Amino acid sequence: MDSLVTAAIAARDCDEINFLHASYGQRTQKRELTCFQTLCGHYRPLRRKVLSWDWLAEIGGSALTDPALEVPANDTKAGVPITYVPFRNASFLCAAVAWAEVIGAGQIYIGAVEEDSSGYPDCREVFFQAFEQTIATGTRNAFSIQIVTPVLHKTKAEIVALGMELNAPFELTWSCYADNEEACGVCASCRLRLKAFASAGFTDPIKYRNLSQEDYK
Amino acid sequence: MDSLVTAAIAARDCDEINFLHASYGQRTQKRELTCFQTLCGHYRPLRRKVLSWDWLAEIGGSALTDPALEVPANDTKAGVPITYVPFRNASFLCAAVAWAEVIGAGQIYIGAVEEDSSGYPDCREVFFQAFEQTIATGTRNAFSIQIVTPVLHKTKAEIVALGMELNAPFELTWSCYADNEEACGVCASCRLRLKAFASAGFTDPIKYRNLSQEDYK
Repeated sequence: MDSLVTAAIAARDCDEINFLHASYGQRTQKRELTCFQTLCGHYRPLRRKVLSWDWLAEIGGSALTDPALEVPANDTKAGVPITYVPFRNASFLCAAVAWAEVIGAGQIYIGAVEEDSSGYPDCREVFFQAFEQTIATGTRNAFSIQIVTPVLHKTKAEIVALGMELNAPFELTWSCYADNEEACGVCASCRLRLKAFASAGFTDPIKYRNLSQEDYK
Repeated sequence: MDSLVTAAIAARDCDEINFLHASYGQRTQKRELTCFQTLCGHYRPLRRKVLSWDWLAEIGGSALTDPALEVPANDTKAGVPITYVPFRNASFLCAAVAWAEVIGAGQIYIGAVEEDSSGYPDCREVFFQAFEQTIATGTRNAFSIQIVTPVLHKTKAEIVALGMELNAPFELTWSCYADNEEACGVCASCRLRLKAFASAGFTDPIKYRNLSQEDYK
């Protein structure tokens, strides 16, 4: 959802867009890839690229990539949650930077959300600032590459509202940590999403298995 | 060679060592992997891990990973050389950081060389300093992870001398950009290595195809 609205903003603001998808052995890898291809059909980026980080699953340490660890149904504890994938965003950004260097792109859009999010350390503004410094020192000096985080300080409800304004096709996205026909409606990711649509005053166009969206209104 | 001497230093200074090898579609991938496994037999790290970054080759932009680009025989021009792989060290470090988070390692040793090296931007001290800041902001706060670059400011000759002092098995390493029975002796990497051994007053134990090492003395 955050990635979609970020893509919608990039499509509005940039002359040229290129889409990068990350597979990393996450539970919902296949479904997310299908969403990506469908969204490419919608936004028609100049280039699209699907890359794999199989080692993220191999390294483990996260319920998102390790089948032995269970995704908690309602993980609202303080601290870094078990779904945190170690240094994942840094790994994705590295590929985006390498690709940007090769095709000559000056901006990398990423749909990270800081405050109203899951408590991942690599979704914080300080992290992205440090990463920009890493790019400035670790790449060719020929041009600069900027990281753009247009939804970083938005609430999930604001993201939904902005996406609606930009006609972002939410029906083509998948947020649930599980991979079933319909979203589970109870994992932390589904709960955040449902709450966001309810707060923004919209109905989520995807189907939920365990509950009526009316429960969130 | 730089990695080997760095590993020898880590083995000397640390209670526990773990070895990480990177395959990224480079021309000499198979041979480097064999070297890695043989060096594991020599140093016996507690854990070893071989990870793949196939996307580095897919993204291209470097003579090391793109068969369509030729490795120049004698690339001594100023600037970033064609063998530079975009943001490669950052990508490798990301995996090392993720693994360090999972196994609880506090230090990552990397054999980068700044001054006396190939002109890669991601081998500079400013880059590693920025990356440490990225780690500090993008990982769990539970413990800190430090990047250790023990050969960063050494000349290649000093690296050879130190390796000899530590009984590092140079005969188990491969530096040539090509993958033949014997090292080519003419690519930028071979030239740097041969010059280093000659300056340090040692003979390189590996075999060269095109020249006698006496030429360098």
